[in-house]
Amino acid sequence: MTQKTIIFIGIAICLLSFVFVSFLYIWLKKQNSGNAKIKSVGKLIKEGARTFLRKEYAVLAKFAAVAALVIFILLPSPVWNAGISDIFEKNLIMALAYIFGTLFSAIAGKIGIEIATNANVKTAEAAKKGIRESFLCGFRGGAVMGLAVVGSSLLGILLLFLITGNTTMLLGFSFGASSLALFAKAGGGIFTKTADISADITGKVELGIPEDDPRNPAVIADNVGDNVGDVAGMGADLFDSHVASIAAALVIASSLINSVTNITMIFCFAAIGLLCSIIGIFTSKMGKKGTPTGALNKNTYVTTGIFFILTALATWALNFSWRLWCASALGLVIGVVIGITTDYFTNDTKRPVRQVANASKTGPAFTILSGISYGFLSVLPAMVGIAVSALSAYYICAPLGEGYGMFGISVAAVGMLSIVAMIISNDAYGPIVDNARGLAEMGNLGEDVIEIADKLDSAGNTVKAITKGFAIGAAGLTVIALLGAFLSEINAAAALTGRSLISGFDVMNPLVFFGLLIGAAVPAVFSALQILGVDKNAQRMIAEIHRQFKEIDGLKEGKEGVCPDYAKCIEIATKGALKELIPAGLFAILSTMIVGFVGGVYAVGGFLVGNIISGLMLALFMSNSGGLWDNSKKYIESGNNGGKGSDAHKSAVVGDTVGDPFKDTAGPSINTQITVVSLVATLMGALFLAVSIF
Amino acid sequence: MTQKTIIFIGIAICLLSFVFVSFLYIWLKKQNSGNAKIKSVGKLIKEGARTFLRKEYAVLAKFAAVAALVIFILLPSPVWNAGISDIFEKNLIMALAYIFGTLFSAIAGKIGIEIATNANVKTAEAAKKGIRESFLCGFRGGAVMGLAVVGSSLLGILLLFLITGNTTMLLGFSFGASSLALFAKAGGGIFTKTADISADITGKVELGIPEDDPRNPAVIADNVGDNVGDVAGMGADLFDSHVASIAAALVIASSLINSVTNITMIFCFAAIGLLCSIIGIFTSKMGKKGTPTGALNKNTYVTTGIFFILTALATWALNFSWRLWCASALGLVIGVVIGITTDYFTNDTKRPVRQVANASKTGPAFTILSGISYGFLSVLPAMVGIAVSALSAYYICAPLGEGYGMFGISVAAVGMLSIVAMIISNDAYGPIVDNARGLAEMGNLGEDVIEIADKLDSAGNTVKAITKGFAIGAAGLTVIALLGAFLSEINAAAALTGRSLISGFDVMNPLVFFGLLIGAAVPAVFSALQILGVDKNAQRMIAEIHRQFKEIDGLKEGKEGVCPDYAKCIEIATKGALKELIPAGLFAILSTMIVGFVGGVYAVGGFLVGNIISGLMLALFMSNSGGLWDNSKKYIESGNNGGKGSDAHKSAVVGDTVGDPFKDTAGPSINTQITVVSLVATLMGALFLAVSIF
Repeated sequence: MTQKTIIFIGIAICLLSFVFVSFLYIWLKKQNSGNAKIKSVGKLIKEGARTFLRKEYAVLAKFAAVAALVIFILLPSPVWNAGISDIFEKNLIMALAYIFGTLFSAIAGKIGIEIATNANVKTAEAAKKGIRESFLCGFRGGAVMGLAVVGSSLLGILLLFLITGNTTMLLGFSFGASSLALFAKAGGGIFTKTADISADITGKVELGIPEDDPRNPAVIADNVGDNVGDVAGMGADLFDSHVASIAAALVIASSLINSVTNITMIFCFAAIGLLCSIIGIFTSKMGKKGTPTGALNKNTYVTTGIFFILTALATWALNFSWRLWCASALGLVIGVVIGITTDYFTNDTKRPVRQVANASKTGPAFTILSGISYGFLSVLPAMVGIAVSALSAYYICAPLGEGYGMFGISVAAVGMLSIVAMIISNDAYGPIVDNARGLAEMGNLGEDVIEIADKLDSAGNTVKAITKGFAIGAAGLTVIALLGAFLSEINAAAALTGRSLISGFDVMNPLVFFGLLIGAAVPAVFSALQILGVDKNAQRMIAEIHRQFKEIDGLKEGKEGVCPDYAKCIEIATKGALKELIPAGLFAILSTMIVGFVGGVYAVGGFLVGNIISGLMLALFMSNSGGLWDNSKKYIESGNNGGKGSDAHKSAVVGDTVGDPFKDTAGPSINTQITVVSLVATLMGALFLAVSIF
Repeated sequence: MTQKTIIFIGIAICLLSFVFVSFLYIWLKKQNSGNAKIKSVGKLIKEGARTFLRKEYAVLAKFAAVAALVIFILLPSPVWNAGISDIFEKNLIMALAYIFGTLFSAIAGKIGIEIATNANVKTAEAAKKGIRESFLCGFRGGAVMGLAVVGSSLLGILLLFLITGNTTMLLGFSFGASSLALFAKAGGGIFTKTADISADITGKVELGIPEDDPRNPAVIADNVGDNVGDVAGMGADLFDSHVASIAAALVIASSLINSVTNITMIFCFAAIGLLCSIIGIFTSKMGKKGTPTGALNKNTYVTTGIFFILTALATWALNFSWRLWCASALGLVIGVVIGITTDYFTNDTKRPVRQVANASKTGPAFTILSGISYGFLSVLPAMVGIAVSALSAYYICAPLGEGYGMFGISVAAVGMLSIVAMIISNDAYGPIVDNARGLAEMGNLGEDVIEIADKLDSAGNTVKAITKGFAIGAAGLTVIALLGAFLSEINAAAALTGRSLISGFDVMNPLVFFGLLIGAAVPAVFSALQILGVDKNAQRMIAEIHRQFKEIDGLKEGKEGVCPDYAKCIEIATKGALKELIPAGLFAILSTMIVGFVGGVYAVGGFLVGNIISGLMLALFMSNSGGLWDNSKKYIESGNNGGKGSDAHKSAVVGDTVGDPFKDTAGPSINTQITVVSLVATLMGALFLAVSIF
C-alpha cells in the first residue's frame, strides 16, 4: 500500500470517529433529562461553561493572532532573509498551520464541553434506573470528548501532511495545539480550583453542609469548573501530547533513511490506535456483576490488546520493522505499568493513603508533611519507568541504522499515546459523573440515586490516578522525542547554512550546564504562578461567599425560595482565571527565547533537558500528592479515624485543599509547559543558531 | 615561595586558629554563669547533647568501619587486581584518609558542641549587662565552631597532601567528611525537628503556653536539638563542603599543565580565607548604635573585603594567574548576592512573608499554598546566580589552556567557600542565642533580658537565611567542580587501562539520559525519607508529652516543684533519630552504585547531573519556604494580622511546623547528599568503567 492510501484510510477512520461522535450525541439527546430542578441547574452549568469558554477563547484568539504574526515574520526563516515565494510558501503556511492547530484543539474542546454538559443531566436521571444505565451515560459522554480530540488531532495532521508533504509544518500545527493547551489548561485549572476550594472551605469546613448543597453560592461554579477544567482543559492537554508525539516522530523519521516507510508506519499506527479506541468504546459496558472501576479498566486493557494485534498484523502485512513494533508495544505497556504504580500512592486500600489519614489525627501539619513525603517517593517508580522505557526503546531500534535509536523512543511515545482516545474517555467520565452527583443532590433525587452517583464518582477518581500517571509517562517520552526533533531541526538548519553539525549536548559544556540550571527552575516558577493565581482568586471568592451568607436573609438556614447569587461566583472565577492564565505560560515561552538568544543552541539544549527533568519530577510529585490527599480525605469521610467532622477530617480537608491546585492546576499543566517549551525551541532553533550572544 | 613553604604557612594558620579557639574557650569560661536554675538547665542541655552525640558517633563509627573496609578492598583499585605493595601504599592510605576525614569532622563537631553548650548559659547571663555583651558571648561561642571546622578541615587536607602528595587520596578524606556529614546532618536534623515540632504543637498550639515554658516536657530536648542539629550538624555540613571544594579543585588542578602552581594557589587562597575569618572574628563587635544583624552582616563584608585584598597581593607576589583570582573573587561575590536574594524571600519586611501572613487569615491551606509558591519562585534567582557564576568562571579561565574552564569553576567554588569560617560563626551564633533565650525564660531572668535575647535570636534567624543561600550556592559550584573531578578521575583510569578517553556526557546518549532521570528522583526520595522520619518521631514524642500532662499531677497548672520528665523526651528524640538517620543516606549511596554497575560511567555522569539539578532545586525550595513560614509566623506573633492566638496565627503555626523539617532537616541535607553521591561516583568511577552491564 502506498503512503497516500494509508493517509486516506487514516482520514476515513477520523471521519468514522466523527460519525460515532454524532451517533453518541443523538443517543445521549434521546435519554431522559429528569425533573425541572435538574434541568434548570443543568442549564446554569451549561451556560456558565459556555460563557467561560467563550471569554477564554476570546483572550486566546488575541494571543494566537499575535503568535501567528510572529511566526509569519520569523519562521521557518525571517522574512528579511527569505524570498517572496518562500514567504508565501513557507512562512504563510507555517502561520496557517499554527492557526489550524489552535482551531482544531478549540473545536474539540467545545464539542466535549457541549456534550459533557448534556451528559451530566442524563447521567443523574439514568441513575434512577440503575448503576449500569447511569454508567453508560457517563462513559459515553466522556467518549465524545475522547473521539473528538483524537479524531480532530489525527485529521489535522494527516490533512496538513497531505497538503504540504513537510514534517516541519507539523511542528507549527503542534505548537498551535500546545499553546492553546497551555492557556486552556491553566485557565480551566485556575477556574475549577478557585471554585472547588472556595465551595469546600465555606461549605464543608465552615458551615458543615454537604458537598453539593444548593445553599452554597459557589456550588454551580464548582460544577462548571469540573467541565472547563477537567473536560476542556484535560482534552486540550492530551490533544497537545498526541499531536506532539506524532509530530516529533515524523520530524525524526524524515531525517532517516527509509523515511517514507517510517512516516507511513507512524500514520498507520496512529490510525489503528484511534480505531481500537472506537472499538473499545463501543463494546464498553458495565457487566451485571461488575464495578464501574472494573469496567473502565477493562476498556483500557481491551483497547491495548486489540492495538497489539492490529499493529502486529499491519507490521506483517506492510513490512514495517518488527523492532519498531516492539518499541511501540513497549511504550504502551510501560504507560500502563506507570499508571498502576501511580495508583499505589493514591489508592485508599494501600499504605500511603492510610498513613496520611493516620497522620491527620495529629494535625494538619502532619497531613501536609506526610503527603509531601509520599508525593516525593512516588516520583521514583515513574522516573525509573520512563528511563527504562526510553533506554530499551533506544537499544531495540538502534540496530536499524543511524538515528534509529532516538526514533525508537519517539515510536514508544506514539505507542503510549495510541489509545489516548480511550484514556480521555475514561478521564472525562470523571467530571461528568461528579456533576451528576451534584445534580442528584440539588435535584432531590433521593438517597439511592446519590449513592449510585457516589459509586460512579469514586470510580472516576480511582481511574483518574491511573490515567494521570499514564499521561505524564507519555509526556515524558514525547518530550525526549522532541529533544531528538530539536536536534534534527538544528542540524537541518546548520547543513543549509554550511555550519558544522551538532552531535549532541555535552553537560561538560558550560553553556549546556548553564541552560540546564535555568531550565530546571522554569517548571517551579510556572507552577508557583498558577498556584498563586488560584490562591488569590479563591480568597476573592471566599470573601464573596461570606458576603452572600451575611447579606442574603435565610440563605444559611435554607429558607424555601431563597437562592444564592450563583452567577456572581461564576463571574469571579471567570475573571480571575482569565487574568491569571497568561503570565505563567508567557514566562515559560519568553525564558526559552532569552536563553536561546543569550546562550545559543547549546544552552537551549541544556535548558530543554533541565526543563524535562525538573518538570517531570514536579508534575509527578504534585499530581500524586494531590490525589493522595483527596483520597485520604475520602477515606476518613467514609468513617475511618473518626469520620466526618473529626479533627482528623479537618486536617485532611486542609490536605485536600492544598492538593487541589497541585493535582488539577499546576501538576497536569507542567506536561504542556514542557511540550510548549520544546516546540518553541525546535521552531526557533535555526534562529538561535544564527543569532546569539555566546 | 615553594609549594612546601605555602603548605607550612597554611599549617601555621590552622594552628593559629586552634590557638584562638583555646583563647575563646578560656574567655568564655571566665564569663559569669548565672543563677542555679540556669546552671542546672544548662547542664541538662549539655548532658543531652553529649549523650546524643556519643550515641550518634557510636552508630557512625560502625558505618565508618564497614565503609573503610570496603574502601580498603576496592579503592583505588580492587585488592585482587593490585600488587601487595599497592595494597599497602594505596588502598590502605585511602582507607586511612577516609577514617581521618570522619574523625576530623567528628572532632570539630564535638568541640563546637562543647563550647556552644557553655556559651548559651553565658550569653543568657550576659544579657543582664546589656545587648552588646550578650551578643559578644553568642558570637564568640559560634566562632569557636567556625574556626574549629575550617582549622581542622584545612589542616587535614594539608597534612594529607604533605604526606601522600596525591590528590586522589584527598577524595578519600573528603568522602570521610561527607559521609559523616550526611548522617550527622540527618541525625541532628531529625532530632532537632522532632523536639521542636512536638514542643510547639503541644505547648504553643494546644496549651497556649510560651515557647520555652519549663512545664513543657519537650523543652530541654528542643534546646538540645538546636545544638546537635544546628551547631554540630551544620558544622559537619560545611566542613564537608569546604573539603569537597578544595579536593575537587586539587583533583582538576593535578590534571592540568602547571599543576604545581595551581595546587599551590588553591592552598594559598584557602589559608588566606581562614586568616581573613580569624581577623574578621576578632574585630567583630556590635557598635554602640548598631544592631546585631548589622554586626553579623558587617563581619561577612569585612572578611570578604580583606580576602579580596590579601588574595590579590598573593597573586601579585607569587605570580598566580589574575584570571583565577577573578574567578575566586567572582565566586565569593555571587555567593553574597545569592544570600541577599534569598533574604528577599524570607525577610519579614518584604512582600513574600507579608503575603503568606495575609493568606493565613483564610486558613492553613492558604498558608501552605502561598508558602510553597514563593518557595518555588525563590529557586529562580539562585539557580540563575549559580548558572551565571559557573558560566563566567569558565569563560574567564578557559583561555589559560585545556581544562582551565572547569578549573575556573572549581576556583570559584573555593572562593565562595573561602570565608566559610565566618559564615559558620554567624550561623552557629543562631542556636546559641536561641538557647540563651530559652534559658532566660526558664531561669526567670525577667522581661528585659528576654527582650534582649529575643532581639539577638531574631538577628540569628535573619542572618541564617543569608548564610543558607550562601551554603547552597557554594554547594552548587562545588558539585559542578566535582563533576569535573569525576571526569578527570575516569579519564585517568581510562588512560591507565588503555581505554578510549571520555570527552563528556552527551544528553543525547540514552545512557546519560537514563542516569539523568533516575538521578533527579534521588533527592526527592532522600528528602521524603527524612521528613517521614521526623513525622513518625514527632508523633511518638507528642504522645509521650500528652501522657506526661495527663499523668503528672500539677504539671499543666505549673505547681511549684513539679517537673516534667525531660529525659524521656530526649531519649525518644535520640532513639528515633538514630533509627531514621541511616536509610536516606544509604539509599543515596546505593542508588549511585546500582546505576554505575548497570549503566556504566555514562549513566553515572547523567545521574550526577540529574542529582545536582534536582537537588539544588529542592534544597532551595525547602530551605526558603521553611524560612519564609517561620518568619511569617513571627511576623504575626509580633502583633500583625491579629497577633498571637488569632486564626491567622494558628494557620501560621501549621506553616511553620511544615517548614521546620523542610528548612532544618531535609533542605540543608541535600547539599551533603549531592556531595556524597558525587564523591562515591568519583571514587568508584574506575570500577564502573571496568564492570558494568551496559
